Amino acid sequence: MNQRIRGVLSPVVTPFDSKLKPDAARLLSQCRWLQDNHVGLAVFGTNSEANSLSLAEREELLDALVAGGIAPASLMPGTGSCALPDTVQLTQRATRHGCAGVLMLPPFYYKGVSDDGLFRYFSEVIQRVGDANLRIYLYHIPQVSQVPITLQLIGRLLKEYPGTIAGIKDSSGNWDNTNAMLKEYQPQGFDVFSGSEVFLLATLRGGGAGCISATANVNPAAIHQLFATWQNSDADQQQERLDAVRAMFQKRSMIPALKRAVAHWSNIESWSVVRPPLVALDAADSQVLITDLETLDFDMPGLRDYS
Amino acid sequence: MNQRIRGVLSPVVTPFDSKLKPDAARLLSQCRWLQDNHVGLAVFGTNSEANSLSLAEREELLDALVAGGIAPASLMPGTGSCALPDTVQLTQRATRHGCAGVLMLPPFYYKGVSDDGLFRYFSEVIQRVGDANLRIYLYHIPQVSQVPITLQLIGRLLKEYPGTIAGIKDSSGNWDNTNAMLKEYQPQGFDVFSGSEVFLLATLRGGGAGCISATANVNPAAIHQLFATWQNSDADQQQERLDAVRAMFQKRSMIPALKRAVAHWSNIESWSVVRPPLVALDAADSQVLITDLETLDFDMPGLRDYS
Repeated sequence: MNQRIRGVLSPVVTPFDSKLKPDAARLLSQCRWLQDNHVGLAVFGTNSEANSLSLAEREELLDALVAGGIAPASLMPGTGSCALPDTVQLTQRATRHGCAGVLMLPPFYYKGVSDDGLFRYFSEVIQRVGDANLRIYLYHIPQVSQVPITLQLIGRLLKEYPGTIAGIKDSSGNWDNTNAMLKEYQPQGFDVFSGSEVFLLATLRGGGAGCISATANVNPAAIHQLFATWQNSDADQQQERLDAVRAMFQKRSMIPALKRAVAHWSNIESWSVVRPPLVALDAADSQVLITDLETLDFDMPGLRDYS
Repeated sequence: MNQRIRGVLSPVVTPFDSKLKPDAARLLSQCRWLQDNHVGLAVFGTNSEANSLSLAEREELLDALVAGGIAPASLMPGTGSCALPDTVQLTQRATRHGCAGVLMLPPFYYKGVSDDGLFRYFSEVIQRVGDANLRIYLYHIPQVSQVPITLQLIGRLLKEYPGTIAGIKDSSGNWDNTNAMLKEYQPQGFDVFSGSEVFLLATLRGGGAGCISATANVNPAAIHQLFATWQNSDADQQQERLDAVRAMFQKRSMIPALKRAVAHWSNIESWSVVRPPLVALDAADSQVLITDLETLDFDMPGLRDYS
């Protein structure tokens, strides 16, 4: 566990069957395709509909991925739940599997909670997991969780648990916030991942670790390419091309749009299934999305070979 | 299940031991005291820290209450979770126990979800539970869940599931919204409970079913008294006295303040324990709360006999 995970990670979309049951075999295939495209696996993220899965479902899927040969060193499962025991249980399991780290939402039911309360929550998790190999990546996505991870909270946690608090995914979309973390905490070994590839180049130029991005589900190779060659002279042009693809998803409902693209390029229609309260794209919106993407020469090469 | 539950219900606070484990025996005692004060038991509500409990913990507590002799007809457990299978599992268990109904949050992780998605979610729950005895009380608490139950959604659900969609707890604090539900849906047998006793008299005058209120944890007899005698000439004075007690809790952090009062009047200090991310009142705030309540001649009569 000495080598910290870096680069581009995908919050892997979760396949369901027609009865809304997660399909572990299909998830495994998808993870293999992503892994072969040099993208790490932040399974159980927002875009994975993780909070629409029961704890038991997440445990079974994680076990199936590891049993199926996915390298634990490329896994950063989301483990943050509203309830302390759930977070502890899934975090412990991920850590015992040897996962590179866990991506941890704050408890998100109560709003307006204090940094004292959040500090106490993360402290309890760390102490209860009780594993020196635990690496926590905090998950700052205030527009969804409504519970921010403040700079002050990071400072307190890093001071108390310097080896364990390993970094953050900043999905706020607020570059000033990402930049403040890069300046203040990245030099202390706190790895900053931007929450979208839109900020990948800026994050890398600021000394950050990479990005964990929804659209790494569909555009993994190109996003990794920028990570691998960000010091090349064409980096800004690469960034522009990534942004153009991202925009096609961002202007729609992100998760249904991602799943529609996967369904289309894998030729497996059931990939479009989402669990409620989400709703799949309708036929007309689906068609326009694919047409829009084709105008950009977008493709998901090799995907069908993994299905 | 022909007699619908009405009156005053308490979202019962959940006792924890020093290791933050729920204390089923103590919860049972508390429920007995509340029941003997004519208050129904909306266990696993917001004020119960229900979303800080694992599914297994909620199941064990519910089983312990029923095994301990609490009348299922007085129980309206909260069962709404982010994940469909969790909601189905707990709802099914509550219904099989013969609970009067369940209080159901919408899935609350994703924000900005459509009424279509929420309709689909509640439909899936109803179909999967598949029990004619199921009675769902929708839980509208937008300032916490950030996912509102709109009037349009209620109309759609009532039309599709007229026997099953039994009512709502409106915790919005927006009287215009409660009043609109009373006018539009109460005549169709959709029982409207206000989310605080501040609106109890107005709700009853509007034909509603009662209230489900945090402060019914500490002031059950007086709130029930207004429910039982709301057509008496002193009803407005009763309402004023209830509001004065409520204000003492409302101006503080509600759950820690409720637990502090229970700890004080039961003389059981561990009642003050909250799970993170919540934080207990400190010694100074605790003292001021008790002093403030004593100036109102507030008491929790008989509580010590149940401990």
